[in-house]
Amino acid sequence: MGLVVQKYGGSSVADAEGIKRVAKRIVEAKKNGHQVVVVVSAMGDTTDELIDLAEQVSPMPSGREFDMLLTAGERISMALLAMAIKNLGHSAQSFTGSQAGVITDSVHNKARIIDVTPGRIRTALDEGNIAIVAGFQGVSQDKKDITTLGRGGSDTTAVALAAALDAEVCEIYTDVDGVFTADPRVVKKAKKIDWIAFEDMLELAASGSKVLLHRCVEYARRYNIPIHVRSSFSGLQGTWVSNAPIQQGDQKVEQAIISGVAHDTSEAKVTVVGVPDKPGEAASIFRAIADAEVNIDMVVQNVSAASTGLTDISFTLPKTEGRKAIDALEKARNVIGFDSLRYDDQIGKISLVGAGMKTNPGVTAGFFEALSDAGVNIELISTSEIRISVVTRADDVPEAVRAVHTAFGLDSDSDEAVVYGGTGR
Amino acid sequence: MGLVVQKYGGSSVADAEGIKRVAKRIVEAKKNGHQVVVVVSAMGDTTDELIDLAEQVSPMPSGREFDMLLTAGERISMALLAMAIKNLGHSAQSFTGSQAGVITDSVHNKARIIDVTPGRIRTALDEGNIAIVAGFQGVSQDKKDITTLGRGGSDTTAVALAAALDAEVCEIYTDVDGVFTADPRVVKKAKKIDWIAFEDMLELAASGSKVLLHRCVEYARRYNIPIHVRSSFSGLQGTWVSNAPIQQGDQKVEQAIISGVAHDTSEAKVTVVGVPDKPGEAASIFRAIADAEVNIDMVVQNVSAASTGLTDISFTLPKTEGRKAIDALEKARNVIGFDSLRYDDQIGKISLVGAGMKTNPGVTAGFFEALSDAGVNIELISTSEIRISVVTRADDVPEAVRAVHTAFGLDSDSDEAVVYGGTGR
Repeated sequence: MGLVVQKYGGSSVADAEGIKRVAKRIVEAKKNGHQVVVVVSAMGDTTDELIDLAEQVSPMPSGREFDMLLTAGERISMALLAMAIKNLGHSAQSFTGSQAGVITDSVHNKARIIDVTPGRIRTALDEGNIAIVAGFQGVSQDKKDITTLGRGGSDTTAVALAAALDAEVCEIYTDVDGVFTADPRVVKKAKKIDWIAFEDMLELAASGSKVLLHRCVEYARRYNIPIHVRSSFSGLQGTWVSNAPIQQGDQKVEQAIISGVAHDTSEAKVTVVGVPDKPGEAASIFRAIADAEVNIDMVVQNVSAASTGLTDISFTLPKTEGRKAIDALEKARNVIGFDSLRYDDQIGKISLVGAGMKTNPGVTAGFFEALSDAGVNIELISTSEIRISVVTRADDVPEAVRAVHTAFGLDSDSDEAVVYGGTGR
Repeated sequence: MGLVVQKYGGSSVADAEGIKRVAKRIVEAKKNGHQVVVVVSAMGDTTDELIDLAEQVSPMPSGREFDMLLTAGERISMALLAMAIKNLGHSAQSFTGSQAGVITDSVHNKARIIDVTPGRIRTALDEGNIAIVAGFQGVSQDKKDITTLGRGGSDTTAVALAAALDAEVCEIYTDVDGVFTADPRVVKKAKKIDWIAFEDMLELAASGSKVLLHRCVEYARRYNIPIHVRSSFSGLQGTWVSNAPIQQGDQKVEQAIISGVAHDTSEAKVTVVGVPDKPGEAASIFRAIADAEVNIDMVVQNVSAASTGLTDISFTLPKTEGRKAIDALEKARNVIGFDSLRYDDQIGKISLVGAGMKTNPGVTAGFFEALSDAGVNIELISTSEIRISVVTRADDVPEAVRAVHTAFGLDSDSDEAVVYGGTGR
C-alpha cells in the first residue's frame, strides 16, 4: 500500500458536518494501510466572503495582500479537518502551503508552482500522521511572500504534492461522480467516463469542461501521476485520468474513439476588420494583445479578398479580458492599420475530443453533419489532432451539444438520472 | 521622529468601516514623519466564530490545530488593513507572526515569546512601507509550528516588537480612553489616569484591571518601552505607562499616592479545613495544586486553635480552575490529612494600588475604615509593598469599590460622563 493524495473541494467541506464526513473517509484510507496526504480548499463560501470584505476596504486590492487574505480560508478548513480526524482517534497535522514546501513564482493571485520540497510532510507521514495541506497556496521563492495559485489551484497543489511524494494516485474529490461525456446539466444522457487519457482530458479541460483544470492535468501528465476524480458523497468509482487504460475486473477499459463533447460560453469573439494582407500584420496584432497580458484561445484568418488586399482576423478570448483587448488594439491602431473592430460576446464554443479521431477520418464530417442537421450555423472552426472546435451563437450551444453527443453514440442507455451536483449519496 | 508601534484591538477593526477608520489614523502617524509598525487583532467576533466551528468538529481540539485555526483571524484583519492603507495612497505590507520573527516556545494556546527577529519588518520599513503585523501569534522555535500567545496576546506582540525595534512608544489603541482609577462601569466618577508607573500598572493588572494584561506590562517594564493606552475612536491623549513621569505642557505629571482601585469577581476561594499545624502541610497542599497546573492568587493561613492543633488554609484561584483544584486536593487527601474542603465562588476582591502607600502609613487604616463605613465585611487580606487586597462577598464589591474610591479622593470633580466602551468620539 502506497501513498495517496486526496483533494477535497470547498463544497465537500462546506460546514462542520461536511468536515466530519470527509474526516471519516480520510480515516478509512488510512485504515486501509495507505499513507495519506490531504489537500483541502476553503470551506464553501469563505473565499467569496473574504473577497467581499476586500472590496469593501479597497476597490483595487494589492495582489500581495489579497493572497494573504484569501489564504486564511484554507487555514480554517485544514485546521478543522485535522481536529475532526484527531477526534476519530487518528493523528493528523495541518500544514500551510509554505510549510508544505509549495514554492511558487511571485505572480500574486495566479502564481505557478516551481518546486515542491515536502520535507515536513514526509516527516509527519513517517511519524504516522495524516498530513493535511492547504490547497491553492504557496510561498514565493524570492521574497518569501504568500501566494495563491488562482482558480482550481487546490487541484494543482494536490497533483504537485503527489508528484513530489511519488504518490500512487491523486484522488480529486468533488460534488460530481467524475468526468462526463458532456455536461449533464445540458445533456441528460451524458455518461460518466471510466477512464480517459491525459491528452483527451487536456483537450476537454481546454475546451470548457470544468471538472479538472488544464494546468492540473498538464502537471499530472508531466509527472505521470494517475488522477482519480470521484464524488466525496458516494463510494463509487469515478473517472481515472492516466497514461494507460485501467483494469476493470478482468477487462482493460478500451480507449474510446470519442471521449466527450465540451462546451464553453465564457468567451467572446473579436474580429479585426480590414487588415492589410501582408507579412507582419498578424504579428503586430497579437503583440499588442500579448503586451496587454490577454490570453487568447482560437485564432482564425480568412482568405483575403483579392479586390482589396484586405483580410479579417478573428480570435476568441475570455469575456473578462474583452475590454483590455479592445483597448490595446485601439491604442495600436496606427501601427496595425485596420479598418474597424467587432466585439461579439454572444458566442459559444462546442468541441469534440477524442484520440480516436486521428485514425477515424469520418469524425470531422460526422461532427459538421450533426451540427447541420440540428440547424446550427458555424462561425469559426479550429482543430487539433484530437479535437475539433466550432464557434456558434451562444443560444445554439445546448442543442448543438446534444446533437453531437447523440450522433457519436455517447448517449447513455440507462434511464437513470445522472448524479450531478447532488449531496445525497 | 522615531519608530512607533501601534496596536489595534478587535473592536477597533470590527468591520470594513472600522478598518478604514484605523487606516486613516495609521496614515496620519506616517505623515507626521514616524516609521509605523501596526499590530492588529482579529476582527470583532472572528475568534469566537472560529472557536464555535472548532467545537462543532471536536470537543477537545488539538492545541496545534487550534492555533492554526485561530491565527486565520489576524491574517484576515491584517491583509484588509494593508489594503485599506494602500487605498489611501501609502504603501503597506502585512506579516504573519512567523514572518515578523515572533519566536515562541511550544506551549500551544498560551505560548511565550522567547525572541523577536524582525528582519523583514526592518526591511519593509526601510523601503518606506507601513508594516502590519498579526498580533497574538508566533512560531515555535523547535518545531516551527504556529503558536498563539493566549488572552491579550496582541498587546504582548506589540510591546515585544517595540522592544526589538527600539521603538519610541508602543501605542495600545482600544475602545476606552485609557486606564481609569476604577472601572467606570462601577464608579461613575472614575478618572482617566494621565500617567502611571510600570509597578503600579502591574499591580492593577494583577488585581483585575482589564485594560492591559500583566504579561504585556511586565515585558514593557523589562525593556523600558513606554506604553500609551488610548482610544481608537478619539484623538485624545490616553494613559502613559512608563518608568518616569511624563511632561504635560510645562508640568511634570506628579506621582499619585494612590493610582487606583481594582476589583475582580472572577475568582473563587478554597478553604482547606482542619489541617494539622505542622511543618510540611502547606507544602503538600500547594504541591498537589501545582502538579494539577492550577495557578493560585492569594494564600492565607489562620492561627491554629490551640485546643485542636488544627488550622485552616484558604487560597483564591480563577473560578475556571476550581474543579481541577478540588479534584487534586481530594486525591491527595490521605497525604495531606485535612478534615474537609470548602469551595466558595461568590467572592470578590478589591485592591488599592499606589506606590505612595509605601511612605504614607495611613493608607491601610483608611482602606479598612472606608470598607467598614460601607458595611463591607472582610474575609481575607493580602498586601504587597504598593497594594492592599481584600476578599469580600461578591455582592459587596460595587459598593466597596465606590466607597474606597471616594475615601482616597479619587473621584472626578467633573460631572461629565466618562467615555467607556463608546464608539462615538
